Amino acid sequence: MEKDILIQFGERIRSLRISNKLSQEELANKTGFHRTYIGLIERGQRNLSLRNIEVFSKYFNLTVNELMNFENDKN
Amino acid sequence: MEKDILIQFGERIRSLRISNKLSQEELANKTGFHRTYIGLIERGQRNLSLRNIEVFSKYFNLTVNELMNFENDKN
Repeated sequence: MEKDILIQFGERIRSLRISNKLSQEELANKTGFHRTYIGLIERGQRNLSLRNIEVFSKYFNLTVNELMNFENDKN
Repeated sequence: MEKDILIQFGERIRSLRISNKLSQEELANKTGFHRTYIGLIERGQRNLSLRNIEVFSKYFNLTVNELMNFENDKN
């Protein structure tokens, strides 16, 4: 069964954060989100909005389409 | 200046709907959304959630990443 999209998105953010050598706190500071929100997103516990998705794509310098490319998560 | 992401997403949904020869009402019935919600999304007036984005990707048989590929909107 296909993994829940919130979990896929959370894993994507986590993988990008780690490959950028950032803590959740640092990513929170850079995106303007609260640290706990970053944690909740990474655990697939937030159904975030398109605008918030765009905040991440802009921060990681990806298009929203590239950000949502969960298959090759080796970015 | 880059077009607002809600407008880009709305245009994408509209373009997919039209290429599938559906009215807003028909798309609403097929996705379970209200017709007015479809209209608001198409006009870029709704900051929809990831789960609602996934409803559209599943209906149009696209991955979320393909759905969010606004550049080549000639699907």
